[in-house]
Amino acid sequence: MRQKRFFLTEDQIPTRWYNIQADMRNKPMALKHPVTGKEMTAEDLFPIFCEECSRQEFNQTDAWIEIPAKVREMYTYYRSTPLVRAYGLEEALDTPAHIYFKNESVSPVGSHKLNSALAQAYYCKQEGVTNVTTETGAGQWGTALSYAAKLFGLEAAVYQVKISYEQKPYRRNMMQLFGAQVTPSPSMSTRAGKDILTAMPNHQGSLGTAISEAVELARTTPNCKYTLGSVMSHVSLHQTIIGLEAELQMQMAGEYPDEIIACFGGGSNFSGIAFPFMRHTLRDGRKTRYIAVEPASCPKLTKGKFMYDYGDEAGYTPLMPMYSLGHKFRPANIHAGGLRYHGAGVIVSQLIKDGYIEAMDMDQIEVFDACTLFARAEGIIPAPESGHAIAATIRRALECKEKGESKVLLFNLTGHGMVDMVAYNQYLSGNMINLPLPE
Amino acid sequence: MRQKRFFLTEDQIPTRWYNIQADMRNKPMALKHPVTGKEMTAEDLFPIFCEECSRQEFNQTDAWIEIPAKVREMYTYYRSTPLVRAYGLEEALDTPAHIYFKNESVSPVGSHKLNSALAQAYYCKQEGVTNVTTETGAGQWGTALSYAAKLFGLEAAVYQVKISYEQKPYRRNMMQLFGAQVTPSPSMSTRAGKDILTAMPNHQGSLGTAISEAVELARTTPNCKYTLGSVMSHVSLHQTIIGLEAELQMQMAGEYPDEIIACFGGGSNFSGIAFPFMRHTLRDGRKTRYIAVEPASCPKLTKGKFMYDYGDEAGYTPLMPMYSLGHKFRPANIHAGGLRYHGAGVIVSQLIKDGYIEAMDMDQIEVFDACTLFARAEGIIPAPESGHAIAATIRRALECKEKGESKVLLFNLTGHGMVDMVAYNQYLSGNMINLPLPE
Repeated sequence: MRQKRFFLTEDQIPTRWYNIQADMRNKPMALKHPVTGKEMTAEDLFPIFCEECSRQEFNQTDAWIEIPAKVREMYTYYRSTPLVRAYGLEEALDTPAHIYFKNESVSPVGSHKLNSALAQAYYCKQEGVTNVTTETGAGQWGTALSYAAKLFGLEAAVYQVKISYEQKPYRRNMMQLFGAQVTPSPSMSTRAGKDILTAMPNHQGSLGTAISEAVELARTTPNCKYTLGSVMSHVSLHQTIIGLEAELQMQMAGEYPDEIIACFGGGSNFSGIAFPFMRHTLRDGRKTRYIAVEPASCPKLTKGKFMYDYGDEAGYTPLMPMYSLGHKFRPANIHAGGLRYHGAGVIVSQLIKDGYIEAMDMDQIEVFDACTLFARAEGIIPAPESGHAIAATIRRALECKEKGESKVLLFNLTGHGMVDMVAYNQYLSGNMINLPLPE
Repeated sequence: MRQKRFFLTEDQIPTRWYNIQADMRNKPMALKHPVTGKEMTAEDLFPIFCEECSRQEFNQTDAWIEIPAKVREMYTYYRSTPLVRAYGLEEALDTPAHIYFKNESVSPVGSHKLNSALAQAYYCKQEGVTNVTTETGAGQWGTALSYAAKLFGLEAAVYQVKISYEQKPYRRNMMQLFGAQVTPSPSMSTRAGKDILTAMPNHQGSLGTAISEAVELARTTPNCKYTLGSVMSHVSLHQTIIGLEAELQMQMAGEYPDEIIACFGGGSNFSGIAFPFMRHTLRDGRKTRYIAVEPASCPKLTKGKFMYDYGDEAGYTPLMPMYSLGHKFRPANIHAGGLRYHGAGVIVSQLIKDGYIEAMDMDQIEVFDACTLFARAEGIIPAPESGHAIAATIRRALECKEKGESKVLLFNLTGHGMVDMVAYNQYLSGNMINLPLPE
């Protein structure tokens, strides 16, 4: 019988993350201090991030970083995640393409976000931190951090984008179940929140406002560190476990991907699946297409500009050299909350600039068409974020059909959509619209 | 590093189901015709069920039944499911017991129900059936059947208990996403539904009313067969894939369970995990405890009587020799919708009568205490149904601690609770109560 899913045994799971910075010819440009504008070092991040993550952020020399034993142990709670041959989808499309996906939705919290949450919580604990804080939109990252914090005995405070807090109570409940305090942002509990709410009453919140509040809490609270789920280089580093596993699993399947496709918010899952394969491109010139898929209503890669910009609304974060729509940009309220962010991580931004990565944007209805087709063919209801990668994969698979090419496509299924059924309901009842790019 | 999860490769997955009826000294008593009271044969079920399932229902001779190749192929979409050593839970309880669970929540539809839905849909398709129908409470079985029907190109009509249809839209949306027609029961579309609604306006529905409607639809529609997710012996047969896999996986772990624990609604998951192990008890006298856990508000095993009773409200189904609270029993509205059923399957009922199985009942708050502890220790948010097995396992593990015994406990995690967050919210906010046994 043909093999559908490929797993690694626990002793085959990679023990090191891959740091692509070491192999980049053009290194990412420096971060700059938000107030002084001076180039920053790891030490400058210590007031906000734990020390080990700060050092990883600036590490441009070591290609391999040891995964701590305790983090590896917690990885075995859900890893290896399966690499799946999407026979069902191939048959539904009648395509000669070979479609594979890495199924990160099987993580306890339902998405790939846990890969970095475990690492960040572990390092915080090691350094004597007692409290962690973060922001979350739809709640995938917040759920992951809440669970990781509980595992390592840390108290977690999560600022959740207010509109999501109200519209998506399930994810909020999951964070609370894991013991986290969840506050809708903007709130009156921080100076940043007060400034926003007095200037703009009834502000519905954004990742930018929530980051500002969490960073402020970390800066003003002893033993409290900020964590985040995307954008930063150390997050991309932790996520490379995805691609490193996938590389071994593709070997088990006897194939190598011609194209690697992932949705794009700040870059965490894209980096995670793409970077380990990209080392063969950087080191040996191996030709592989890397495709980042973003929502048409938040197109930082296809329509943004490369610039120094803040990561948050209030301007508390370092200035980062990245593709951005501007830190005051307010994305339309699409269901893929995890992709509603104005900027891209600095490594990905440099790699796009250097021509290694292609970007593609996707409308919401095409995404849900793809999600529905995928659910019926493979049985897994995908998160709307992941739906962007699926939609792009379907486009590519249909092009293969037209040209009679049996390309090997690999995409990352970042999470499941079990707690996004409201969105599916809207789609199924014909009430979904494509949201425009805001002015 | 200690091993956390045990998987089978696809070629290690069992190729046959285990039919415990062949090994029972006292065979289950005959089903009787609901109107004539005469003993029934497989042929008498043909108007309602597909033929192969009808034959399996009455098969008391063949211990092993071949799993069709196409069903085995679809099993590889999610099987083997992991056997997990619950190190996190053991540490949280500080118990010398070794706790294992079989994680059926990783199935595409989030529960073990798919194991039988795939088989039933396959046999229907083979026999030229075009339409299938069924009932569902909380929606786990309905979701499984909807997905399986879509895979095999069958049209599915699901009658969902009205109160669940209204209170739990997520599961309804999942069924609709898989292309099923979902009708709240009781409805005005069947005679049974009309009779109920004219006699009792505003009836909120029960599994009993929904079964009546689905059975009526099958009986009155050409090429339409009824399917169901529990109680019947052929369903238990299909679910033995759980225990057969677990047996091989326990061998990989180098242990054998002293106690096997599962929640109990109609018996599908309990049978699935317990029967393969129980063959060693029946054949060789191996001493193992088998513990079925039911809600205190629906205690058919601990407080019901062994009797001939109908499976549904209207009395359309065969009369079955089973432990029952009476087919007019209306269970309180606990969150574990899958356990709100008045009767137990005929095989399990006979085995309880013969002393092979112990029953235990559990209050709702102890269940959610257990679910929360488990979620924080193992990262998986369990379905409230599964929470009954977890609560019983915790009780047993704490007894082991008291006595200093390192027993090996194995329980079945039937499903995840991602779409049951409303229940968790009620629990977390202190508004949950223990529901009494209705008069």
